[in-house]
Amino acid sequence: MCRWLAYSGSPVLLDDLLYKPKHSLIVQSLHSTLGAEETNGDGFGVGWYGVQDTPAVFHSIEPAWNERNLRELAGHVTSPLVFAHVRASTGSPVQQTNCHPFRHGHWLWMHNGYIDGFKTVKRDLTLEVDPQLYPEIEGTTDTEVFFHLALTYGLEDDPPSAVERAVGFIEATGQRHGIEHPVQMTVATTDGQKVWAFRYSSVGKSRSLFFSTDVRRLRAEHPDVAILQMISDEARLVVSEPLGDLAGAWNEVPESSYGVIQPGDDALLPFTPGVPANR
Amino acid sequence: MCRWLAYSGSPVLLDDLLYKPKHSLIVQSLHSTLGAEETNGDGFGVGWYGVQDTPAVFHSIEPAWNERNLRELAGHVTSPLVFAHVRASTGSPVQQTNCHPFRHGHWLWMHNGYIDGFKTVKRDLTLEVDPQLYPEIEGTTDTEVFFHLALTYGLEDDPPSAVERAVGFIEATGQRHGIEHPVQMTVATTDGQKVWAFRYSSVGKSRSLFFSTDVRRLRAEHPDVAILQMISDEARLVVSEPLGDLAGAWNEVPESSYGVIQPGDDALLPFTPGVPANR
Amino acid sequence: MCRWLAYSGSPVLLDDLLYKPKHSLIVQSLHSTLGAEETNGDGFGVGWYGVQDTPAVFHSIEPAWNERNLRELAGHVTSPLVFAHVRASTGSPVQQTNCHPFRHGHWLWMHNGYIDGFKTVKRDLTLEVDPQLYPEIEGTTDTEVFFHLALTYGLEDDPPSAVERAVGFIEATGQRHGIEHPVQMTVATTDGQKVWAFRYSSVGKSRSLFFSTDVRRLRAEHPDVAILQMISDEARLVVSEPLGDLAGAWNEVPESSYGVIQPGDDALLPFTPGVPANR
Amino acid sequence: MCRWLAYSGSPVLLDDLLYKPKHSLIVQSLHSTLGAEETNGDGFGVGWYGVQDTPAVFHSIEPAWNERNLRELAGHVTSPLVFAHVRASTGSPVQQTNCHPFRHGHWLWMHNGYIDGFKTVKRDLTLEVDPQLYPEIEGTTDTEVFFHLALTYGLEDDPPSAVERAVGFIEATGQRHGIEHPVQMTVATTDGQKVWAFRYSSVGKSRSLFFSTDVRRLRAEHPDVAILQMISDEARLVVSEPLGDLAGAWNEVPESSYGVIQPGDDALLPFTPGVPANR
Repeated sequence: MCRWLAYSGSPVLLDDLLYKPKHSLIVQSLHSTLGAEETNGDGFGVGWYGVQDTPAVFHSIEPAWNERNLRELAGHVTSPLVFAHVRASTGSPVQQTNCHPFRHGHWLWMHNGYIDGFKTVKRDLTLEVDPQLYPEIEGTTDTEVFFHLALTYGLEDDPPSAVERAVGFIEATGQRHGIEHPVQMTVATTDGQKVWAFRYSSVGKSRSLFFSTDVRRLRAEHPDVAILQMISDEARLVVSEPLGDLAGAWNEVPESSYGVIQPGDDALLPFTPGVPANR
Repeated sequence: MCRWLAYSGSPVLLDDLLYKPKHSLIVQSLHSTLGAEETNGDGFGVGWYGVQDTPAVFHSIEPAWNERNLRELAGHVTSPLVFAHVRASTGSPVQQTNCHPFRHGHWLWMHNGYIDGFKTVKRDLTLEVDPQLYPEIEGTTDTEVFFHLALTYGLEDDPPSAVERAVGFIEATGQRHGIEHPVQMTVATTDGQKVWAFRYSSVGKSRSLFFSTDVRRLRAEHPDVAILQMISDEARLVVSEPLGDLAGAWNEVPESSYGVIQPGDDALLPFTPGVPANR
Repeated sequence: MCRWLAYSGSPVLLDDLLYKPKHSLIVQSLHSTLGAEETNGDGFGVGWYGVQDTPAVFHSIEPAWNERNLRELAGHVTSPLVFAHVRASTGSPVQQTNCHPFRHGHWLWMHNGYIDGFKTVKRDLTLEVDPQLYPEIEGTTDTEVFFHLALTYGLEDDPPSAVERAVGFIEATGQRHGIEHPVQMTVATTDGQKVWAFRYSSVGKSRSLFFSTDVRRLRAEHPDVAILQMISDEARLVVSEPLGDLAGAWNEVPESSYGVIQPGDDALLPFTPGVPANR
Repeated sequence: MCRWLAYSGSPVLLDDLLYKPKHSLIVQSLHSTLGAEETNGDGFGVGWYGVQDTPAVFHSIEPAWNERNLRELAGHVTSPLVFAHVRASTGSPVQQTNCHPFRHGHWLWMHNGYIDGFKTVKRDLTLEVDPQLYPEIEGTTDTEVFFHLALTYGLEDDPPSAVERAVGFIEATGQRHGIEHPVQMTVATTDGQKVWAFRYSSVGKSRSLFFSTDVRRLRAEHPDVAILQMISDEARLVVSEPLGDLAGAWNEVPESSYGVIQPGDDALLPFTPGVPANR
């Protein structure tokens, strides 16, 4: 289990995103209130877009609440698109190569949840990964294999469809091995322009996921909240759990659905995994 | 705030001490129930006596629940005298030189609590340390300075008196700087033969401390508990919080007192800090 | 490139093995003289047999010359069978799961060298690993895959044959991918009783490997060298490079051969890789 | 012994400064050619000025050549004023709080060299530090005490004079303790606007220090070198050893002197330590 946050909008200092909120992700690393585990101290990661097309990723095996370098970075890096993740390992070792977000080209990917019975299905899932992509797998998490399955199924062309096919393949594989509920997930991915956030689980009872209310509306309702005056109309946060208790600020993503944060109107759509037919 | 454990008795595998108990110190690193902080994830340390006079100390900045090397060691090291400590930093950096137990010659020292206003009094306390001992201070914790004050006041000759003088000096110094309650502590120290464990706080409301009941009595009351058949009559544990719920196994150390674990009868005596007169 | 050491004989303090020699493995971590790389600062590992059947392994990502915990362990752990390894990464990340020696049950395995073009052949090699063993692979090194291939081919029953088959398979796979000289290796493995040490490379020009002269003979020639009086007649070291300059103490293992350290006479035999026929 | 680099000029990507040069600081971390030690693998640090007055500092205990996070940062951070340092410990532990550059407010400080007999004089030097500054000392290096002595003597008002007084005090203290040559140093410090770089040693034979030739002149002599077309006229590097072999690019700082990099003409002046009179 883990906690994560995705931000898209006008450039913000990471500090405003990661440390300033009352119930910030750093606070959640020590005291999560909605997570399956209260402590998310098994490493963390931040990915952000800046001067290059390819995002930077900073991974650490120390608990986020301790990390002096993260605090330094947070005070000096601004970005319009940020992924951040605090990890509670479900078994794989605590090492930088197992920290989220994972990166492929200019894409980022992070995950809260697990592939049930991963040891049992790991070989079958890994074999399904495109042999060209296979050597890129650097760590040993279920999430990184999941990401590479989605890439194999065309994440870069059609993210929702690729994730649906990946989940479908994982479910079919798990069920073949007698695993009742193979997938539990909230996943975020981005190409540096749009953000897709998915909430789904085979059992139909998924980890929590929230998105922030339209800034224009929040601004009207809370004229006294300074930060709302500073960020752009289209700024949006997607989070594992609310960062504070501002009335009306947070909306739960429904079960088996996904959201798209993009220029113009954002979207919220149903998520329907399916076994890939053409493979 | 921290959690610690001291064991003296027939040689045991560290694993039996650190991992096997239901509410083990490793469990407490993630979920302490009596501590001021629930999570003690800011490093840990183990000291043990073995083939040499000088004890070994193993210090790590990773949370104890994650530490693969600790698990390896625990499965292979046996010792008749073990100190173990999981840390929740009260401000000083998470680094090996700030991990307990601290060592001087064949002595070990560990602490749960804090010196209030340490930044304010650190210079005065450090100046009081014997200049011969001063260069040995490697880290930046209040505990290490406290240890060196006790060494300065004769810990190696008369531990209770030296600790009383050190606490007296810290209290006098703190009060001179306007600090109301300078000391909060449970401390354990050993020379490799005896163990001294202190419970005290300036405010008179100290962190919890427990010692295990006489093994002979426990064995009679619980003839079915295997471990009790294996350890020696004189084996004794002192802990921040009970390691399990065996009825009658744990006794609270009273406020302002200290215990001595030693060959023959153990002792429980009052602890009375005093300003060192002859300095 | 890496440096390693294997010891078998009467129990010794790790310190005598790792730190005391003039040109010790710790010295080699900073200044190797025969290695392909002078600095072996990308982590290290020690495996030793003690109170349990299964050996302990201690892995660290810090350079060996810096590691305070290793120095502590070395001063307190004695063992009759020790593997130690300092690493210079040939590309895979510096993380504990990539540190040698690797362990399976009561077996240890360590390697100096590389599988050429590993990224290209990794998938094919990994697919050949017994699916039962596959989930045990925790890191991303060529060495760990090599070890699991040897296990797949029966390392636990007939080590030389299993290693010959593994090398044969790696060479055949590499050549199929156009890699001219797929294998460069000195490998040591042990079941806790015997030690096997292999020197081989596809190009016929292998990394250096030495074994120590019979202790009885050395003792006769150097009656003044204290350590020789202390260790058992059958004590034997195998090393990447000599630990000192004692005349007559070190013998080079010939190209394409392997040695066996065992009760009774040790053996030195030819090593002939072959494509596994029955798979 | 260590290696360091200071850059001031038009904003550059850290990557261009730290990784791109043929004989870059990262290369020097593994293979220094002019340093007292070839390997500088005991941690590193980077400080840079950006969106805030206070510079960011990134400290790591891993060798610079291994550090994945440093490579990420280097590819995404641009700055007009950068300090970078690779460390070879002269005894104090490898921990983040012992990594250079050190920071106080908007000042940075880094050092190559040592205070001879530091254990002997540490107490006397530390006592001289302004009691207000004393609690800020977080690590255990000679460099951090040296920095705080310079701050005590007015670094923020008159850097050359403060450093002269600090060195004078260290020399007087050392000599009182029978240390023949107390100081060996190249030091860089900055307030975010100007950079001061000092070369001095009590023995009169100091560690190497170089500054880059005027960009306008280099550009004229090497019209084909692309980077010279990109950086500003006033860009300047000060380094422990040259980053490449561009003819005419590097000038040695003379013994017992210091340079100032500033808007307008830079300066090169004699450095004359003196015992502080008014203390």
